[in-house]
Amino acid sequence: MWGREYTGEVLSTADFNRLRSIYEPLGESVRALVDATIRTTEDAETIAAVKNDIDAAVQRLRRNQIDGTFGETLIDNGATVSWGNAVRGIRNALAPPVFSHLDESGRVSADFHLGAAYEGPPGHVHGGVSAMILDQLLGEAACPDLVPRFSGSITYRYVRPAALGTLHAEAFQTHTDGAKTYCSAYIADAEGAILVEAEGVFIMPRWLRN
Amino acid sequence: MWGREYTGEVLSTADFNRLRSIYEPLGESVRALVDATIRTTEDAETIAAVKNDIDAAVQRLRRNQIDGTFGETLIDNGATVSWGNAVRGIRNALAPPVFSHLDESGRVSADFHLGAAYEGPPGHVHGGVSAMILDQLLGEAACPDLVPRFSGSITYRYVRPAALGTLHAEAFQTHTDGAKTYCSAYIADAEGAILVEAEGVFIMPRWLRN
Repeated sequence: MWGREYTGEVLSTADFNRLRSIYEPLGESVRALVDATIRTTEDAETIAAVKNDIDAAVQRLRRNQIDGTFGETLIDNGATVSWGNAVRGIRNALAPPVFSHLDESGRVSADFHLGAAYEGPPGHVHGGVSAMILDQLLGEAACPDLVPRFSGSITYRYVRPAALGTLHAEAFQTHTDGAKTYCSAYIADAEGAILVEAEGVFIMPRWLRN
Repeated sequence: MWGREYTGEVLSTADFNRLRSIYEPLGESVRALVDATIRTTEDAETIAAVKNDIDAAVQRLRRNQIDGTFGETLIDNGATVSWGNAVRGIRNALAPPVFSHLDESGRVSADFHLGAAYEGPPGHVHGGVSAMILDQLLGEAACPDLVPRFSGSITYRYVRPAALGTLHAEAFQTHTDGAKTYCSAYIADAEGAILVEAEGVFIMPRWLRN
């Protein structure tokens, strides 16, 4: 069973901050563990001992857990939280996480660091990871009003190889046409050179149209 | 500093199997921890105690670790291993992992399971995660001979919402044109319904052309 997303629960800002203070530090530690698991050269005995400790931690966390996922929850300040989102979920060690900023003109931007866990070609960001991050930011640029618009199609152009490290991304609407919202986005390196470009079409579902 | 990829090291099959038997079980345990960290509802005290255990595990693993990443290593059986690859790396808890099969006709296929860590829309696969997996399989279909061809551009079409769960993907070459190799791919659900389609152009670098 997936999802508590339709319970209509609204989280108070105080509760959100309390939950964040409990779970975000664990997410950060697990993120470090993912990195260390990739890069360690410790011997078989140490690895087996660490594995036992991790298994014990998993058992402890699973004593009380939800069946599916938390989905997306509305906060009473008008924002939303997706605890487990693959790109921005603070509880999700897969997510860098990418924290985006939406400015008054509707432009979404983010600075983030990609380490060993995001590798594709040796020493470089996996092309699919760049796509994953841009997908998220394009979606946010397409839905600044929180009205859902689903990705129809997205095209990525790989302009230059992207070395692992600190990166910057932006996404913005270019135009709308009926139920369709068109967005563009890019990832740039620390010097501002464009590495990956993206263009996407997002579609408002039929049941939300006038 | 990133990469040991240019050391020209070739791993014996016996060494690969030995290293895999040491590190793959740890990767699997960390994968379970990522999931449990997203879904747990244990209280603040328990979470803080688990976090301390994880931090200790990270310290232990980091006592001996490489500076950057392992990149890609050739095995003496003609295969390659990318220990930390974001999609297929067995040491990388971010990777589902997706183990692909290349058949005699050059078709790449994979069955895999996506749980809570791959969520975008509530209960559904993040569109960017679908792209990440298809990027990897398209790249493998473009380079069955292990000659590098880099992604030029890839277009994804989102046909149906993809619920989290067990999925199937395939990728294959459609045609070539000089240095360009064109590939298609899709993700389908357990009933065979197409959820996401992709088309990509992969380009052989100038220094490898005749």
